[in-house]
Amino acid sequence: MADLISPQVLKGFRDSLPQQELPKKELMKRLETVFESFGFVPIDTPALEYTEVLLGKGGGETDKQVYRFEDHGGRDVSLRFDLTVPFARFMAAHASEVPLPFKRYHMAKVWRGENTQRGRYREFVQCDFDIVGTDSAAADFEILLMMTRAMDVLVDGKAVIRLSHRGVFNQFLASLGAEGKSVQVLRAVDKLAKIGADEVRKLLLESVAPDGAEKILAFIGARGDFLSVLEQLESLSGGEGDGSRRLKALHALASELGNAGRFVLDPSITRGLDYYTGIVYETFLEALPGLGSVMSGGRYDNLAALYTKQELPGVGASVGLDRLMAGLEELKLLSTAAKSEVLVLAGEGAHAQALAQKLRAEGLNAEVYLDDRKVAQQYKYAEAKGIRFVAQTNPLQYKDTVTGEVKAGLSPSDFRAWVRASTQGGLG
Amino acid sequence: MADLISPQVLKGFRDSLPQQELPKKELMKRLETVFESFGFVPIDTPALEYTEVLLGKGGGETDKQVYRFEDHGGRDVSLRFDLTVPFARFMAAHASEVPLPFKRYHMAKVWRGENTQRGRYREFVQCDFDIVGTDSAAADFEILLMMTRAMDVLVDGKAVIRLSHRGVFNQFLASLGAEGKSVQVLRAVDKLAKIGADEVRKLLLESVAPDGAEKILAFIGARGDFLSVLEQLESLSGGEGDGSRRLKALHALASELGNAGRFVLDPSITRGLDYYTGIVYETFLEALPGLGSVMSGGRYDNLAALYTKQELPGVGASVGLDRLMAGLEELKLLSTAAKSEVLVLAGEGAHAQALAQKLRAEGLNAEVYLDDRKVAQQYKYAEAKGIRFVAQTNPLQYKDTVTGEVKAGLSPSDFRAWVRASTQGGLG
Repeated sequence: MADLISPQVLKGFRDSLPQQELPKKELMKRLETVFESFGFVPIDTPALEYTEVLLGKGGGETDKQVYRFEDHGGRDVSLRFDLTVPFARFMAAHASEVPLPFKRYHMAKVWRGENTQRGRYREFVQCDFDIVGTDSAAADFEILLMMTRAMDVLVDGKAVIRLSHRGVFNQFLASLGAEGKSVQVLRAVDKLAKIGADEVRKLLLESVAPDGAEKILAFIGARGDFLSVLEQLESLSGGEGDGSRRLKALHALASELGNAGRFVLDPSITRGLDYYTGIVYETFLEALPGLGSVMSGGRYDNLAALYTKQELPGVGASVGLDRLMAGLEELKLLSTAAKSEVLVLAGEGAHAQALAQKLRAEGLNAEVYLDDRKVAQQYKYAEAKGIRFVAQTNPLQYKDTVTGEVKAGLSPSDFRAWVRASTQGGLG
Repeated sequence: MADLISPQVLKGFRDSLPQQELPKKELMKRLETVFESFGFVPIDTPALEYTEVLLGKGGGETDKQVYRFEDHGGRDVSLRFDLTVPFARFMAAHASEVPLPFKRYHMAKVWRGENTQRGRYREFVQCDFDIVGTDSAAADFEILLMMTRAMDVLVDGKAVIRLSHRGVFNQFLASLGAEGKSVQVLRAVDKLAKIGADEVRKLLLESVAPDGAEKILAFIGARGDFLSVLEQLESLSGGEGDGSRRLKALHALASELGNAGRFVLDPSITRGLDYYTGIVYETFLEALPGLGSVMSGGRYDNLAALYTKQELPGVGASVGLDRLMAGLEELKLLSTAAKSEVLVLAGEGAHAQALAQKLRAEGLNAEVYLDDRKVAQQYKYAEAKGIRFVAQTNPLQYKDTVTGEVKAGLSPSDFRAWVRASTQGGLG
């Protein structure tokens, strides 16, 4: 007999056991319901693509993290590292086949060979939703509304959406004469929450003069209600512009809908990535602001410029599902409820399946114990799986293992009513 | 400006547009509901694993098809080519953390660098469900019941499940003195439906004597009702054995539950794979038997033998989602219904989103048109997306684009009732 192979997974990868997979699927289902209620449709793209398609022709920061290899046909291929680049390629290939503006969502795995020391994983799920083919304020606003709905269904609305506008920031940099330094400045500013103003100042001084650094810190430090912050930003950047007008329009829409209080104008939000051109958003759990953003995004001018001459402006956001789950776990908000509602003890012949079948027909999730074991062991199994009710076929009776109550001879529909009454108010 | 990059996908890979992704998600959701109603729980495993974990220490037939490469850390890694091997590794790693018998489902992508000429894809979804940790007939029977339920919800029950038992076949081969040839014989027999009896005879003659080949053809050609076929098999294989007793037990359970008519005992079903040891199943659509099996599986003795000394007998099946979808498309049974139920035309300020928000609160999927375009163009968008109802805010009215009927001033709940009454009976 050969030696055993160690059943280990790769560093940075992990199995998802039912107690992790059930809440993950539940969160994704809730998101899907929100996306669909706004008319968004799902797409999928291959996990593996031509490296040139994913990385373009140049080399960049992310390139080192990409899982890249040569396939059987000698092609240079890579695993996708996000869902945005494949979406850009998708739009270039299919723009004529989908109605524009195209509202799509995509929830799927991506892979990055990142340093795992900071608690990062090399395989994770992204949940992206975007509107492509329009640069209207209505589209920016719809993404904002979806973000608030997503937070409603995921964390009961206990989250703050912070937003800003890259156009306003660029206008401000231009007024400083620092437009050529925007990449370095953005990277420094993006670290404010993590490293504080003093460290950001040091980073800024690497690319701008001292008085420029102070003005940048004043800009990103502006605080107050939406319109007063906006006024400060306009005065710091030399007056009204397209960006500040867009922010005003969004604020007016939100006020009209009565939810302007859900958004904070925060000029320190810039998103590190250089493809954003308009509004940018980040989302923080009220109870765990230090967790970082759990849902981020923004507007970009030209999604698919690498692949097509067709201009496709868009706006979207992405839920960081793993970070969100880590936060919910810390807050003890992660539902780990079993899906099975009743365990039918092993019985004679097909009696157990016959009863379970009747219970399933009533809409209950009914599981049968499949081995001829002692009743105590079967109860232990129910406990291990978190199944509250236990049924036996001979004589027919049901037990609520939480209260200890036993009822004999109930009809399937009466049993169903008992289960529903007992578990009411519990989260899915 | 750099040259454009061609937005092409790799050979054997494909994008899933909403019209493909929506029905795929719908089929998966229905399967999930069946799995959960039987108390099955979901797991996930990494797409990428150590090559040794996936391929073992030897080399085999599948090895050439595996996407295998060296990662950044110099590890020999591969993309999973099925969900069974990762599940075996998972069970070896987590057997003490999950309640046994463990009933799990796993729906995820797998990758094989197969020859694409036969219409095969290199990336596809598998939907596996298994019970591990028991060798009871009750478990074999539960998988059979789940298969019938799956066919109920996927194709309205219009499918035939053909089953057989590898133990009976092995006993028969032993009675011929051909047990050493079982792999070759199984591979030949597995081709019966595809190439016919004459070609199978030729293949059999490569490994057994002429009278042996005739007996094998008689064995796999046995037809009739379940018990009479079973009698023929017993008499051909030298009498009753564990395998035929198990088949009798399953038939008795099915008869008790009144669904024995859903299963055909077909000794030509053997499954090519050599890890099956007990019952084996295949499933054929009544309207498209030539499509091949859309759901197959069987019992195996020792799932995780490569990784652990713990014996883990199991039984399970896998839905071939891509083949099933191809079949449903051919039969025009693939639902392509839009998820959006109403398009709200662009309006002044936030009026359109305000109305859509009220409709969503009624449980409707309500989409807003986000650009300030001519009404005719907005209607065209609704048509392209297959959205039946159109709403406008000023004055408030709703139109059913199928009947042309217009209603003004309805309350959101009255509109909802109208939508539901108009679309009743439609699938998912």
